[in-house]
Amino acid sequence: MIWPNQRLLDLLGIDLPIIQAPMAGLATSAMAAAVAEVGGLGSLGCAVLSADQIRAELSAIRRQTSKPINLNFFCHTSPATDPAQEAAWRGRLKSYYVELGLDPEMPVSTLTFAPFGSAHCDLVAELKPEVVSFHFGLPNEDLLGRVKAVGAKILSSATSVKEAIWLEQRGCDAIITQGLEAGGHRGMFLSDNVSTQAGTMALVPQVADAVGVPVIAAGGIADERGIAAAFMLGASGVQMGTAYLFCPEANVSPLHRQALKTAQDDQTVLTNVLSGRAARAIVNRIVRELGPMTEHAPAFPLAGAALAPLRSGSEPSGSDDFTPLWSGQAARLGRELPAGELTVRLAKRALAKLGALQPAPEQPRKSPS
Amino acid sequence: MIWPNQRLLDLLGIDLPIIQAPMAGLATSAMAAAVAEVGGLGSLGCAVLSADQIRAELSAIRRQTSKPINLNFFCHTSPATDPAQEAAWRGRLKSYYVELGLDPEMPVSTLTFAPFGSAHCDLVAELKPEVVSFHFGLPNEDLLGRVKAVGAKILSSATSVKEAIWLEQRGCDAIITQGLEAGGHRGMFLSDNVSTQAGTMALVPQVADAVGVPVIAAGGIADERGIAAAFMLGASGVQMGTAYLFCPEANVSPLHRQALKTAQDDQTVLTNVLSGRAARAIVNRIVRELGPMTEHAPAFPLAGAALAPLRSGSEPSGSDDFTPLWSGQAARLGRELPAGELTVRLAKRALAKLGALQPAPEQPRKSPS
Repeated sequence: MIWPNQRLLDLLGIDLPIIQAPMAGLATSAMAAAVAEVGGLGSLGCAVLSADQIRAELSAIRRQTSKPINLNFFCHTSPATDPAQEAAWRGRLKSYYVELGLDPEMPVSTLTFAPFGSAHCDLVAELKPEVVSFHFGLPNEDLLGRVKAVGAKILSSATSVKEAIWLEQRGCDAIITQGLEAGGHRGMFLSDNVSTQAGTMALVPQVADAVGVPVIAAGGIADERGIAAAFMLGASGVQMGTAYLFCPEANVSPLHRQALKTAQDDQTVLTNVLSGRAARAIVNRIVRELGPMTEHAPAFPLAGAALAPLRSGSEPSGSDDFTPLWSGQAARLGRELPAGELTVRLAKRALAKLGALQPAPEQPRKSPS
Repeated sequence: MIWPNQRLLDLLGIDLPIIQAPMAGLATSAMAAAVAEVGGLGSLGCAVLSADQIRAELSAIRRQTSKPINLNFFCHTSPATDPAQEAAWRGRLKSYYVELGLDPEMPVSTLTFAPFGSAHCDLVAELKPEVVSFHFGLPNEDLLGRVKAVGAKILSSATSVKEAIWLEQRGCDAIITQGLEAGGHRGMFLSDNVSTQAGTMALVPQVADAVGVPVIAAGGIADERGIAAAFMLGASGVQMGTAYLFCPEANVSPLHRQALKTAQDDQTVLTNVLSGRAARAIVNRIVRELGPMTEHAPAFPLAGAALAPLRSGSEPSGSDDFTPLWSGQAARLGRELPAGELTVRLAKRALAKLGALQPAPEQPRKSPS
C-alpha cells in the first residue's frame, strides 16, 4: 500500500508520514526511538534540555534505532526581566501562595528555555540529526545556514498562510501547519493575536495552496481519521502530540494523565497564564481564575517560574489546580498504547482509509473472484 | 461513482451530500433552488422572513425544482429589552453616530428575529418542507413534535459533543457539527463560552463517536478538499456557507463581496459586537474597536439594531466600517460560480478524491487497456 502523497516520506527518509511532536519535557527518548524504529519521525524536544542532556538523550535513541530523528528547538526572543511586571504577577498569585502555606516572597528559579543559539549550532554539527524543527519561527540566517550546512532538513510551524510563506522563503524544507486545535504552545511568531487563528480544516488547504514545500498537518489529529483527512486537505504528513501523551513512554504526571483521559472536546483553551505565551491546555483552576488570556502574565517563559512552587505545593495532595495540563482538542480520541504500536496502528488504519485512493490506471486491480 | 457514506443522502432523499447553509438574509431562493435542482440540499434562512415572505420564497423555489428543500429557523430565546443596557450600548456607539452626522438619540427599529413558534409550526404544516433545520438548539418538545408530524427531517447544529448528544436525544435526524472555523453565528446553546469551542478536525470524529445519527461537517470547508476530509473524519455530508457567498445568487452587498474576495485565513474573528451573539466575521472597524467579544453588547439580536443606522450611513461612501462581513475562515478557497455549477463541481471533485475508496470487491475495476 502506498500513501497518496509521498513527498514528506521522500524528503525525510521515513516510511510512515507521522511525526511524533517534540513536546518539550513530555516526550522522551524512549518515545522518539520507538516511533522512529517503526518508520515514523521521532522527535526530541530540546528546549528544556542542556547540551549534555541532549547528547545523552540522542545517544540513548541512537542505541535503539538508526532511523531519522528530529531535534526540536525554540526560537523565541529571550525576554528582558521586568521587575515591576514580575512583582505584579507575584501579587496576583499571592493568595494562592498563602492558601498553600507558601511564602509569597519566596525566591523562584528563573526558567531557562534558552532560544536556539550558536552553542546549539555546534551541538547540531556534532550530533548530526537528520531533521531539525523549530517552534516560534526560525533562528537568524547565519544560525539557520549552519544547521542546513550540517545536512539536516528544516521544519518549522506556521499558524497562518503568512507565516508559512515566511518560513518557505527562509528555507524551510516542509511546513508544519498548526491549526487552532493543537495542544501546547502555538508556534505563532508574526502575530500574537489568538482570536484570528484558524482551525486545521481551514488552514491546511490554504497553506498547501500558498507554498511549494510539503505541508504537515497538525492540530486536532489524534486518530486515523484525522490522518486520512489531512491527506485529503493537501498535507503529505501529520504531526501528532496529544495522541502520544497517552503512551506509557510519555513523561506525563499521573494528574496530567488522568486529566487527559477524561478531557472532553470543550475542556481546553488557549491560555498564556501558564507560561506567558498562548498555549492550549485543559482548563484548571489557575487558568479559569486568571485567564484564559491575561495581560498580566510576564513574557514567555517567565510567567511559569512563579507557578512552579504552587504546582509542587499542590500536586502532592492530588490537586492539578496549578499544573499545566497541556492537551489539544481531541484528547478523547487517544488510546493508551506503546508509542511504536500506536504509530503502526495509526498508519495502518489511515492507509486502510486511503489505500484505495491510487488512481486505477497506476494500480490495476483484479476483479474479485 | 458512489459516496463512501450514503446515510445522509438516504435520509434526506438527495443525490449530493452538500447542504447549502441557510445564511439568513444572504442565501436566496434562487440559490436554494439551484443547489436543490442539481442534487444538493438547498436551504432557505427563514429567521429574517415573515410568513408571507417564506411562502413567496418557497413558492419561487418550488417553481424551479421539485427536489427536497430545507427551511431553517432560529431557536434562541427572545431577550427582554434592558433599557439601561441599551442606553449604555448607544453610549458606546455615540461617537460613531456623531462622526457620521447622525443623531445619537435617533430611534432605531427593533430587529425582529422571532424564534421558532406556533405560527411557524402552522406554516411548516402548510408548506411541507422535506427538511427543517434549527440554529441555537431546538424548539420545545411540543413544537418539535408538530414539525416531525409533518414528516420533515430535523437537523440542528452542535458545537460540542454535549450539544450533539442533546440534539440526538431530542429527536434530531442528523447533526450539523459546526467547527470553530464556521462563518456567521455559532449554533452554541448549552454554553456561551467561545474559548473552549473546537475546530472541525477535532470535533467531527468526536461527535461521530458519540451519536448514532448521520453527522454533517461544517466549518472551514470551502472546496472539494474539505468535503473529502469531512468524509474521512466520519461525516456523511457537509454544510457549506462561505463558499456560496461567492455565487451570483447570493444577496451579498458589493462591500461584503469585496471583503470576501480578499479575506485571508487570519482576518476573521468570533465577535458578538454585530448582533449580541458570537458569530464569525471578517474584522472591520467596529469589530476591532469594540470587540471582538464584549460584555457590553445587548443580548441577541438586540445589539444589531443600533448598528443599522451606522451601516446605512457609511456604506454609501464605500465604507464597510459598520457592515457585518460574515465569513468563515476559508473564504480564500471560494470561487465565483453560479450555485448549481459550484455544487456540481464541488461534488465531482470531492468524488474524484473519494471515488476510488470503495473496497475493490464491491467495485470491480477493469484493468487499464
